[in-house]
Amino acid sequence: MKKEKQNKKLKVIPLGGLEQIGMNITAFEYDDSIIVVDCGLSFPEDDMLGIDLVIPDVTYLKENLDKVKGFFITHGHEDHIGALPYILREINVPIYATKLTIGIIDHKLEEHELIRKVKRKIVKYGQHINAGCFRVEFIKTNHSIQDAAALAIYSPAGIVVHTGDFKVDYTPVFGDAIDLQRFGEIGKKGVLALMCDSTNAERPGFTMSEKTVGRALESIFEEHQNNRIIVATFASNVDRVQQIINQAYKYGRKVVVEGRSMVNIISTATELGYISIPDNTLVDIEHLKNYPPEKTVLITTGSQGESMAALSRMANGTHRKVSIRPNDTIVFSSNPIPGNEKAVSKVINDLSRKGAEVIFQDVHVSGHACQEDIKLIYSLVRPKYAIPIHGEYKHRKAQAKIAQELGMEKENVFLINSGDVLELDDSSARVNGKVHVGDVMVDGLGVGDVGNIVLRDRRILAEEGIIVVVLTLEGGSGQVLAGPDIVSRGFVYVRDAGDLMDDAQALLNSTMEHLMDNGVTDWGKIKQEIKDALSSFVWKETKRRPMIIPIIMEV
Amino acid sequence: MKKEKQNKKLKVIPLGGLEQIGMNITAFEYDDSIIVVDCGLSFPEDDMLGIDLVIPDVTYLKENLDKVKGFFITHGHEDHIGALPYILREINVPIYATKLTIGIIDHKLEEHELIRKVKRKIVKYGQHINAGCFRVEFIKTNHSIQDAAALAIYSPAGIVVHTGDFKVDYTPVFGDAIDLQRFGEIGKKGVLALMCDSTNAERPGFTMSEKTVGRALESIFEEHQNNRIIVATFASNVDRVQQIINQAYKYGRKVVVEGRSMVNIISTATELGYISIPDNTLVDIEHLKNYPPEKTVLITTGSQGESMAALSRMANGTHRKVSIRPNDTIVFSSNPIPGNEKAVSKVINDLSRKGAEVIFQDVHVSGHACQEDIKLIYSLVRPKYAIPIHGEYKHRKAQAKIAQELGMEKENVFLINSGDVLELDDSSARVNGKVHVGDVMVDGLGVGDVGNIVLRDRRILAEEGIIVVVLTLEGGSGQVLAGPDIVSRGFVYVRDAGDLMDDAQALLNSTMEHLMDNGVTDWGKIKQEIKDALSSFVWKETKRRPMIIPIIMEV
Repeated sequence: MKKEKQNKKLKVIPLGGLEQIGMNITAFEYDDSIIVVDCGLSFPEDDMLGIDLVIPDVTYLKENLDKVKGFFITHGHEDHIGALPYILREINVPIYATKLTIGIIDHKLEEHELIRKVKRKIVKYGQHINAGCFRVEFIKTNHSIQDAAALAIYSPAGIVVHTGDFKVDYTPVFGDAIDLQRFGEIGKKGVLALMCDSTNAERPGFTMSEKTVGRALESIFEEHQNNRIIVATFASNVDRVQQIINQAYKYGRKVVVEGRSMVNIISTATELGYISIPDNTLVDIEHLKNYPPEKTVLITTGSQGESMAALSRMANGTHRKVSIRPNDTIVFSSNPIPGNEKAVSKVINDLSRKGAEVIFQDVHVSGHACQEDIKLIYSLVRPKYAIPIHGEYKHRKAQAKIAQELGMEKENVFLINSGDVLELDDSSARVNGKVHVGDVMVDGLGVGDVGNIVLRDRRILAEEGIIVVVLTLEGGSGQVLAGPDIVSRGFVYVRDAGDLMDDAQALLNSTMEHLMDNGVTDWGKIKQEIKDALSSFVWKETKRRPMIIPIIMEV
Repeated sequence: MKKEKQNKKLKVIPLGGLEQIGMNITAFEYDDSIIVVDCGLSFPEDDMLGIDLVIPDVTYLKENLDKVKGFFITHGHEDHIGALPYILREINVPIYATKLTIGIIDHKLEEHELIRKVKRKIVKYGQHINAGCFRVEFIKTNHSIQDAAALAIYSPAGIVVHTGDFKVDYTPVFGDAIDLQRFGEIGKKGVLALMCDSTNAERPGFTMSEKTVGRALESIFEEHQNNRIIVATFASNVDRVQQIINQAYKYGRKVVVEGRSMVNIISTATELGYISIPDNTLVDIEHLKNYPPEKTVLITTGSQGESMAALSRMANGTHRKVSIRPNDTIVFSSNPIPGNEKAVSKVINDLSRKGAEVIFQDVHVSGHACQEDIKLIYSLVRPKYAIPIHGEYKHRKAQAKIAQELGMEKENVFLINSGDVLELDDSSARVNGKVHVGDVMVDGLGVGDVGNIVLRDRRILAEEGIIVVVLTLEGGSGQVLAGPDIVSRGFVYVRDAGDLMDDAQALLNSTMEHLMDNGVTDWGKIKQEIKDALSSFVWKETKRRPMIIPIIMEV
């Protein structure tokens, strides 16, 4: 009886993504049931050298595997779905999401050869899914990708509303506006907690409708009828692509879609009916040359200055099919994501240098709710507790401030960290305990085989280079038979550093002589002496600290 | 006679800084005379691993050493003076600059033990310096550091006006407003070319006065009388520091200046009379604890999120003297320089997480002229030719557009690149030839000993790590006496990769056996076989391409 009472709390456990951007994944646990909302990846930080992507450490889910009922996915962006192919290998439970989101996930699962092994279920807005002692309802929202959903999570402890990434768009390009009525209706029932997107919580006002971008595009097409137009935008923003295509069609231009990720998403969206492309509008890039430039539009990836993306290759002259010409008009229909500003500037400079006109302002709107939109959702839902999510700490703190301005008590607003176990029910809420969380780094095929030690080594190698000293000793006597030989990489350009390397060689010779004279045969001791002597010599001469690796062989 | 005629052109040769930000240095050549304006460094690009700073390749000046008459420095920022200690070792000619600028340069020269070897001359505004067939006049401007100057360069071919970095500040905190009258007066004489700062050429309107920051600071001090205040700003912005000190004094707070570069500049500025600090206002950081927090202000470096700067160390809890507390108010009196946005965000998040309030908007004004200010300078100077400088290509292109809007012919506006030789006189101007320019990378004590090959190696080491294979062969027979042994760093965490490394070892053993069986003794061939076998094995297993270095020893 007592035990049962203890269990009557809902646990909300962010397993990643609150200490860094991306990697959105949250576990909801009640009694013997766990459901997981989203399963995203994040991209490596600058100091994660050579890492391709980062996925969450889900040890907690693995330890509670029998409880886990399913993944509920809010929308099809990488930071919400990208870790699925990795996590599903160990936690193979059904995935629930809306149609386009499942379409995008399916494409990923096919690439990872998991499509036959995993259950996916397409959920309609308004539909409820039972999962253990939870019931989950999908609610229509708007975002920079179609088919985004908020989730109403019904638990025995109460209802949690999780917005996912969202904006309020009264005039969306495709489909319906966010279902504000349903937010209100559920709010009236009484909501235990609201987990709301904080990305734009520092920005005052309302987020503009995606349709306003259509108007900006229209005036660009109107003004540039004698130019080829190239528009770079986010691969997954299907509505944006639709609006570009609409303008192209209106002005009698052929459209080429360029960049692998964009081609993929557009083909999924087309198959599933989320984009409508008039006949004879889309042409293959191979046929681009058959049309006058001013009768064509290229829609391309690379709006973030990604060095391997199509636009960057056009800008630096390495794209195999498209050369930038003075008569080109290039439109960035995007804002730089923080951290990408410099890369974007580089691409703009390269394009300008080739004589193209570059338009990079006011052809984009955000996919996230601003302050007034956030106030609207809070006012419809009127939760007992607020748990700001999705955003850096400063963004979540800004939302916490909004919640308090709306009259919520400070102690009912929770800025929790990854791994925190927030226990809540109608009478109280508090962080009670912590589960293991962390980053798992993916490098090539390796998942988790690069850790902090490897990264530390890569960092030293990157900044200072490496010096290898090899040495062959005679088994019995311990006398030097060959070496010490020095090989360096990434340290100095050896041809220019003749004296330095000669002096280092002489130093090692005398160090070894000294050790032999003193009868030192312990390999550990020899290695340490080599390291110390070389390292202090190199520091004195160059003020650098390359990695030094002595290798001893015995014959 | 004919030869003389050919020489009657002024050559303007940017030796760095036009293809990238920073590293401002321009040679002006006429007949047997060269003068050099500014001599800046730039900070390494992301792909320049381990590099500390970058200075210009001045081969052209070295080849024409007898012509070079002096360095004329516009102001004391690193991107205008930072390369001097390196370049002066090879091109030891006098330096001309205003008082504070010389003060800052002197500090550098002392650090580099050059102070006794180099001539410096303090120049007053309005003063003219003769240098070969040139005469150079220093004109008062405003900028985010005091004592900034524009230069009027009188050459036999005509007058060039070089603005340096500048803004128009009618109400500067210290000293006079920009000498617009003199710009007008020289303009009336007839100016051959205007070289004008392009940094803000994309920004409409006027740049606000530094004094407006004082008002913003005042309201922050007024509102936060119960908080400790920490203000981060650029070390060299002495006027900003003055305004912070003014507010501190007004509200009876003690001031601590923290961060080496800021302490240096403030001490130079104090010595030379560019800042006035009321008695008993400045206290040593050691004595900070003797005052109530709300009666103190810290002025600190680190406003760009630099990981080693004082503010970053406070934010991540590694500062030895200052711990951030919930009652702290931290003011970023700066905007992030492009490329630093993410680092700044990280510091803000860290500070917020510690409970501090962070203010990072509207407590800064730019030090560079916006579009209307640029139009003003053009209208006063009315040059025959325009050569936009200081800024990325897109910024210079934006200024070119402004010049054309003001009625200049497109062919009289020159967007030149580093190394271009722009020849001009009253009758014509054109790019005629190119001199060698480039980046010289400084790493520790090494100047130029890290080049593209070393960087390429560092890049591979950084992203993929290294595998060293060592092998001892018998001299005569070529038989394997020891090894092949494998040592890796930055590749995989070996304890977790047992099978992989075992398999690699087995592969190498069999590769060597095969080579021995076939009587292969050529070291080049053996190394290549080891490399090929290991590299394709590793790629297949991990999809990574570590650097592989086979080392053979002979006994």
